[in-house]
Amino acid sequence: MREYKIAVLPGDGIGPEVTREAVKVLERIAEMDSSFRFKTKNFNWNSEYYLEHGKMMPEDGLEQLKEFDAILFGAIGDPRVPDPVSIWELILPIRKNFQQFINFRPVKLLQGLESTLKKEVPIDFVIVRENSEGEYTESGGAMFHGETREMALQNMVMTRQGVEQIARFAYDYARANGREKVTNATKSNVMLHTMTFWDRLVEEVAAENKDIDYERYYIDALAAYFVQRPETFDVVLASNLFGDILSDLGSAIVGGLGLAPSGNINPLGEFPSMFEAVHGSAPDIAGKGIANPIAQIWSAALMLEHLGRKDLHDLVLQAIEEVLVEKKVLTPDIGGNATTADVGDAISDKL
Amino acid sequence: MREYKIAVLPGDGIGPEVTREAVKVLERIAEMDSSFRFKTKNFNWNSEYYLEHGKMMPEDGLEQLKEFDAILFGAIGDPRVPDPVSIWELILPIRKNFQQFINFRPVKLLQGLESTLKKEVPIDFVIVRENSEGEYTESGGAMFHGETREMALQNMVMTRQGVEQIARFAYDYARANGREKVTNATKSNVMLHTMTFWDRLVEEVAAENKDIDYERYYIDALAAYFVQRPETFDVVLASNLFGDILSDLGSAIVGGLGLAPSGNINPLGEFPSMFEAVHGSAPDIAGKGIANPIAQIWSAALMLEHLGRKDLHDLVLQAIEEVLVEKKVLTPDIGGNATTADVGDAISDKL
Ligand SMILES: CC(C)[C@H](C(=O)O)[C@@H](O)C(=O)O
Ligand SMILES: CC(C)[C@H](C(=O)O)[C@@H](O)C(=O)O
Repeated sequence: MREYKIAVLPGDGIGPEVTREAVKVLERIAEMDSSFRFKTKNFNWNSEYYLEHGKMMPEDGLEQLKEFDAILFGAIGDPRVPDPVSIWELILPIRKNFQQFINFRPVKLLQGLESTLKKEVPIDFVIVRENSEGEYTESGGAMFHGETREMALQNMVMTRQGVEQIARFAYDYARANGREKVTNATKSNVMLHTMTFWDRLVEEVAAENKDIDYERYYIDALAAYFVQRPETFDVVLASNLFGDILSDLGSAIVGGLGLAPSGNINPLGEFPSMFEAVHGSAPDIAGKGIANPIAQIWSAALMLEHLGRKDLHDLVLQAIEEVLVEKKVLTPDIGGNATTADVGDAISDKL
Repeated sequence: MREYKIAVLPGDGIGPEVTREAVKVLERIAEMDSSFRFKTKNFNWNSEYYLEHGKMMPEDGLEQLKEFDAILFGAIGDPRVPDPVSIWELILPIRKNFQQFINFRPVKLLQGLESTLKKEVPIDFVIVRENSEGEYTESGGAMFHGETREMALQNMVMTRQGVEQIARFAYDYARANGREKVTNATKSNVMLHTMTFWDRLVEEVAAENKDIDYERYYIDALAAYFVQRPETFDVVLASNLFGDILSDLGSAIVGGLGLAPSGNINPLGEFPSMFEAVHGSAPDIAGKGIANPIAQIWSAALMLEHLGRKDLHDLVLQAIEEVLVEKKVLTPDIGGNATTADVGDAISDKL
């Protein structure tokens, strides 16, 4: 029997609430299939931990996580801790140190859901976001504090390795999943150093993959096209920041952040990958038991797929869709009045 | 009689087509009001000019433009000229050298138009975009060309002067126009140098303007909110890149780029301001006479407002709305089959 070791970091706010339901679904899956089981371990590295210890995780935190097969991450963020602290001391170190250079974000209008757009079209694409460099760097500084000439500088950094590996992943994923087109999100008309470099390397990879269509749009136009013709996208390849913006926007057109999953993937498996809903800790609704757990349950399904069980991913997604189609057990964000736990139960029951 | 000297740069593609209609409307306005007239001068600085002369404008181009009261700009971009050339040799030098540090972009669901969103809500806000620094810099470079360690760096640069002046403008504009809230678009949770600096200075200005509400969202969430609750925005204050993305997105929710005007404004009047539709030169439909001229006519109306004639701006906008409400003369992008010239005529006739 195969055992998967999963590190669970429930985090802050609604993080623990939705993560509990995701674990519930994983346990149900393991009950059904006797060929494997999950061994989960909880880590309380969150803002509470920070307030007590002055850091978001122990010195050897990454060492501890390293031995797991995957990480299930809730959400982080608490009004009492500055966001840059929780982000730069927990999420980003995990993404960067574990070389999770792919941030994989499906944008799919699930059965049973309505788009916020008037146009009734199928929406089903994935955003492949570079997750380790680009606009997300510590490089930069500020000068002349308080003077009229005060200024701040920040470097965007793109490397051949970083751009090539994400572009290759986008194409490999497209081919393996019957996707026909890669759309490159760029701003090379203005960012003459980083984004022309990005385009050049992306287009080198595109030239090696002529069987898949290629198109390129400036990020401003592309954001508009997400609203005007979302049905035309298949695989959208984006830098760290552009992928961040496009994935929240994508979630808004298919029903909201309660339905947007993500995987931070280290494809070579040298380090664990991390799965998390795109949404944050939502302090405004935390503790009320009304957060939508679907994004997190779907993220756990992406984890199953990453662990080699695409069949189980598909089963979970089907269960989610059945619950959505029935419309009996929905959280308030999508028009129902069920609790987080009700939705978790309903999805488990369908399995 | 007051005479306004207007430099007209029709540009490429549909630029000349829509600009012709905007000039038509300006001429009609001048006929109606004998207290002033327009003296327009055309400049053929476009991609054709570049192909002939190897540059986008003459050496003394900016000198020539300086003596005008305002600039009406078509759109630039031609498949035969790399975008970075047309942009960095024409649009951006004008914006930067003429210290047009405000890019003013209304997002308004005009009467007679339908939103692309299912939700039927009034949409009426303005994006106040920093237009001279931030992510739009020449600073940076690339190293190790062709090697595995090849990389590119690009600096974002924010200055106290740059941030303070745009934040002050946002608040002054809000107060003068009965707007109740300023929404700050940021990403200070990740961009620790530039965006925390931006937030700090914006919040200094907010503290001096307590009569106007202030809120702050990360750009990813804000892009989603544009789709989910556009009715809640009033004045959105954004950096150069974020304002660029948000304004295309904004146009998509209110009917498309054919309806998005902008003003690049030098508020002190030391240099001419420049008015241009947000859309590009659209080579795919150029020459067919079907481009929607409303964005450019509305941009000309913003020019009238800038020249001190808010009354005339309002008249033009009213004429545009009358034509939209009648639905008889519309270009194909908004469901009609009229030509660019038909729409220009219809709007002139309403005046
Ligand atoms: C929390 C934050 C660092 C993060 C990001 O910007 O990547 C979030 O917005 C996301 O999309 O995962
Ligand atoms: C053409 C380009 C430089 C420009 C920009 O990015 O500012 C355009 O997208 C705009 O919004 O005016």
